[in-house]
Amino acid sequence: MVCAEAVGGTAAAVTDAACAVEMVHAFSLIHDDLPAIDDDELRRGLPTCHVKFGEAMALLAGDALFSLAFQVLASARGPLESVLAAVRKLAQATGSDGLVGGEVMDVLAEGRGVDADTLEFIHIRKTGALIAAACQIGALLGGGSPEQVDTLRDYGEHLGLAFQIADDLLNEQSTPEQLGKAAGSDRARNKATYPALHGVAGARKAADGHALKAIEAARKLPHMVEQLESLATFAVERTR
Amino acid sequence: MVCAEAVGGTAAAVTDAACAVEMVHAFSLIHDDLPAIDDDELRRGLPTCHVKFGEAMALLAGDALFSLAFQVLASARGPLESVLAAVRKLAQATGSDGLVGGEVMDVLAEGRGVDADTLEFIHIRKTGALIAAACQIGALLGGGSPEQVDTLRDYGEHLGLAFQIADDLLNEQSTPEQLGKAAGSDRARNKATYPALHGVAGARKAADGHALKAIEAARKLPHMVEQLESLATFAVERTR
Repeated sequence: MVCAEAVGGTAAAVTDAACAVEMVHAFSLIHDDLPAIDDDELRRGLPTCHVKFGEAMALLAGDALFSLAFQVLASARGPLESVLAAVRKLAQATGSDGLVGGEVMDVLAEGRGVDADTLEFIHIRKTGALIAAACQIGALLGGGSPEQVDTLRDYGEHLGLAFQIADDLLNEQSTPEQLGKAAGSDRARNKATYPALHGVAGARKAADGHALKAIEAARKLPHMVEQLESLATFAVERTR
Repeated sequence: MVCAEAVGGTAAAVTDAACAVEMVHAFSLIHDDLPAIDDDELRRGLPTCHVKFGEAMALLAGDALFSLAFQVLASARGPLESVLAAVRKLAQATGSDGLVGGEVMDVLAEGRGVDADTLEFIHIRKTGALIAAACQIGALLGGGSPEQVDTLRDYGEHLGLAFQIADDLLNEQSTPEQLGKAAGSDRARNKATYPALHGVAGARKAADGHALKAIEAARKLPHMVEQLESLATFAVERTR
């Protein structure tokens, strides 16, 4: 919604699209938490979906949320061409070139040493793709120019990387009470993370670098610059 | 593609959409076969996806196919309004009002007695919804009138029910070699099926009745009537 306003649109114009992105996000968390993948039992301080409702229902709840996202997005207001472009962006960001592709690489990398390029490949897709798509969809439905859509894609990609590296640091350094989910689980599974590869100081520097690049992108936009800057700063300074 | 031609369109106009529907179908089979749901080890005479590639990859392959379906459908040729309507139809047919909703009821019904209404609720959603959506999408992108889109929805719903009841009968009466998947597995899991509820003769009669209603709908269309009739007959007369 901030991205729609950043290009002169209104938050109301993108409410449906914002809900659709949130549904895809929730679907991805439910499936990632499943025993077949991360086998996590705690999420946002509560039992994960499969712990509470069983594996079959968690799997199907994820699938249902995923289809509802496209149903809602395809019903969004706005020029038909922009709505269709938004559907394509969301699908692409979620599929094998995006979120799911990153997750596949993450699963394959588990327990093996990965290099910095592979780790960035994973992070760009697992976290960056959906955040970048959300920013682009906001810009599209907010009536932004093609250049503004690209600027918000850059903003979203760097925001996503900053957020994910900060997430890796939090997983390494926090308690479950602080996080609302399991802490130290990445290390326990020998997962590829920035702190594991670059050390805590190196990871912190990388996160700050991406936040700065997100801020640089935000400064090219006509509105909401301060809010977008605050979000980038929050991504790396948050404690949970 | 037959549905597009039935309303005067061309098969070429709906190739993308046909691929999208097939991807959703493949996604649903991969997820349904998972241990958390049907735990099937054989599909089309080959090991199921999770048996061959592991549960994590099967789960993610399903998710990737699902998003690719929407990416491909949203890139389909045709009037933008029809393409968007097709995206909405596919999403609705897949989600909690369709395929996934039917699967949820099916899982909840396993091991319990269900009545005829519940069984029909499950079958309409698990099998009828996607087939009906495929027919409607073909009609939409083939340039059919709203009445023709509705006629092809009716055709698809009855075709789907005829197909599913015939499937229940085959599961009951065939060998794994004939089916290319496990046979007798429904009964072993005490699953709700037509033969279990209505007997073999009653189920056969219901399947034939739906095939006949599909044929009645097909006869309202200007083209491809014979092909649509053959498909409805095949659905109930096939041996695998």
